[in-house]
Amino acid sequence: MNIVALAGGVGGAKLAHGLTLTPIPSPLQGEERRGEGMLTIIVNTGDDFEWHGLHISPDLDTVTYTLAGLANPDTGWGMAGDTFEFLGALQRLGSEAWFHLGDRDLATHLRRTELLRQGKTLTEATAIITRALGIKATILPMTDDRFRTMVETDQGELEFQEYFVHRQWQPIIKRIRFDGAETAQATPQVRNAIAQADAVILCPSNPFVSIDPILANLKPCEEFITFARFGKPIAAVSPIVGGQAIKGPAAKMFLELGVEPSAYAVAQHYAGLVTHFILDQIDRDQENAIQSLGMKTLVTDTIMKSIDDRVKLANSVIEFINEN
Amino acid sequence: MNIVALAGGVGGAKLAHGLTLTPIPSPLQGEERRGEGMLTIIVNTGDDFEWHGLHISPDLDTVTYTLAGLANPDTGWGMAGDTFEFLGALQRLGSEAWFHLGDRDLATHLRRTELLRQGKTLTEATAIITRALGIKATILPMTDDRFRTMVETDQGELEFQEYFVHRQWQPIIKRIRFDGAETAQATPQVRNAIAQADAVILCPSNPFVSIDPILANLKPCEEFITFARFGKPIAAVSPIVGGQAIKGPAAKMFLELGVEPSAYAVAQHYAGLVTHFILDQIDRDQENAIQSLGMKTLVTDTIMKSIDDRVKLANSVIEFINEN
Repeated sequence: MNIVALAGGVGGAKLAHGLTLTPIPSPLQGEERRGEGMLTIIVNTGDDFEWHGLHISPDLDTVTYTLAGLANPDTGWGMAGDTFEFLGALQRLGSEAWFHLGDRDLATHLRRTELLRQGKTLTEATAIITRALGIKATILPMTDDRFRTMVETDQGELEFQEYFVHRQWQPIIKRIRFDGAETAQATPQVRNAIAQADAVILCPSNPFVSIDPILANLKPCEEFITFARFGKPIAAVSPIVGGQAIKGPAAKMFLELGVEPSAYAVAQHYAGLVTHFILDQIDRDQENAIQSLGMKTLVTDTIMKSIDDRVKLANSVIEFINEN
Repeated sequence: MNIVALAGGVGGAKLAHGLTLTPIPSPLQGEERRGEGMLTIIVNTGDDFEWHGLHISPDLDTVTYTLAGLANPDTGWGMAGDTFEFLGALQRLGSEAWFHLGDRDLATHLRRTELLRQGKTLTEATAIITRALGIKATILPMTDDRFRTMVETDQGELEFQEYFVHRQWQPIIKRIRFDGAETAQATPQVRNAIAQADAVILCPSNPFVSIDPILANLKPCEEFITFARFGKPIAAVSPIVGGQAIKGPAAKMFLELGVEPSAYAVAQHYAGLVTHFILDQIDRDQENAIQSLGMKTLVTDTIMKSIDDRVKLANSVIEFINEN
């Protein structure tokens, strides 16, 4: 069973990590293997930006660090135990330093930027970095082309990191726009992964700014159209639990866009695409409503506090897809 | 009295630092002021190189860190107390990491590179960085243009940092070549400093790869030609003491180029240009020979172990120039 997971930041990375540690049924080989070999994670690059000449890919890094066991569990960005000598020195030199950049983390950005300058694609640079960190699952940027999530707010249109990090997602959102969506192409590697996939999982990432950018890039692909037409499973795990986002601005965004945040609202957002929907125990009263959107449902514990939680959720999702 | 000091790395930086802390006679104002306001340090940029997309100026940084009191006294490069988290992480990502780059030091390179990418000259970038670090003396790169010291050795022609850092100056030198010397121009700021100067001091830096590049760039300038023609003082402090270089490959280079390293050999190297020569007590037997090259001489303690030593030597040099 080949699994493609779509992921943005922390929540998506956690489930992706769980999937790498979960036995995925492999009927062809008559055996079960850990998921990493059959798992491809397509990651949002709408958050990417240039900072002091460096190409920064926040979601790629969050997924990479999480899978490599290097992620900082407290912050949701950067590496555990990282130091900030560079950033302090940069500030003393009078430079903008609102983007939190640890000394070890910086090496990833410099290496990526260097590889891109050498003419490598972002996909190739990501493969080099993830392999160097010992990751066996395939992590793919959704595109090698420029694609920028722009947030139209009460304070004007903002680049995503400006909105998210610098202004700490306080501006009120009016609309989200994907700059470059018309020209950015899904990569051959992404298209191939979809062509080989038995199931696609939308991880519990922000629907508007993590999953939608990937889908915007993926939906025009013949491989994805075929995948969906044949009724293959597209599962989504709700990032909204008890009306709240586990992390980040998803619930706030729903409200600002005029929708009460809920698991149901997430399901509605994905209606017509998603076939399998996973919601938390706490939201079980919404199960029937979600089923009425034409989705199969699984009610389970979705909050991932420990690595064990990640594996359990990944296991539940795989079983749910496999048996339905 | 306006002083222009020509400096390369550690030894040059130390004397330049001493000069900033020394009262320089100011006859026009009838008073003495600390040297920093009347001191311009023209720094070798022949060692500059690109590393992982960053513009690195080793000598500019050594002078800057020394004057800012941030230099690492043990290594001769980088900042005191710096950490190396970035470099370790970069190595884990499979990247070349032979150039020792501390986390705080890195901020300087990134800031400089950023300013250059914004269209600033190296002179402007240096002014921004040195001012941010509280330096009042003017530190000028010898040129804003590309100028690269290339070292022809028994292992082939090498870029300077490749020779100096990566191969730890072990290859045998045959010849030194200044790539770009024909086109690189002294900056307006350098030319103006020379036009205003009452004396030029060649700091105790490597004659071949620190001072010669600056001179190669300076000699064609009308301002420098005029300065020399009017017989204004050009003083040199010997970087060779007791036949040895205080630091670095100067003595080894003399030998490989077929000259016994000595204070006299340094004076001979500068013959026809330098009017005042400062040599160490230990080399006092060479005083007459140096005088026979047409130079006035000062024999004094030239080894700078403490900051007090820097000030004392700077003081001696200023007095020597002023009274002769």
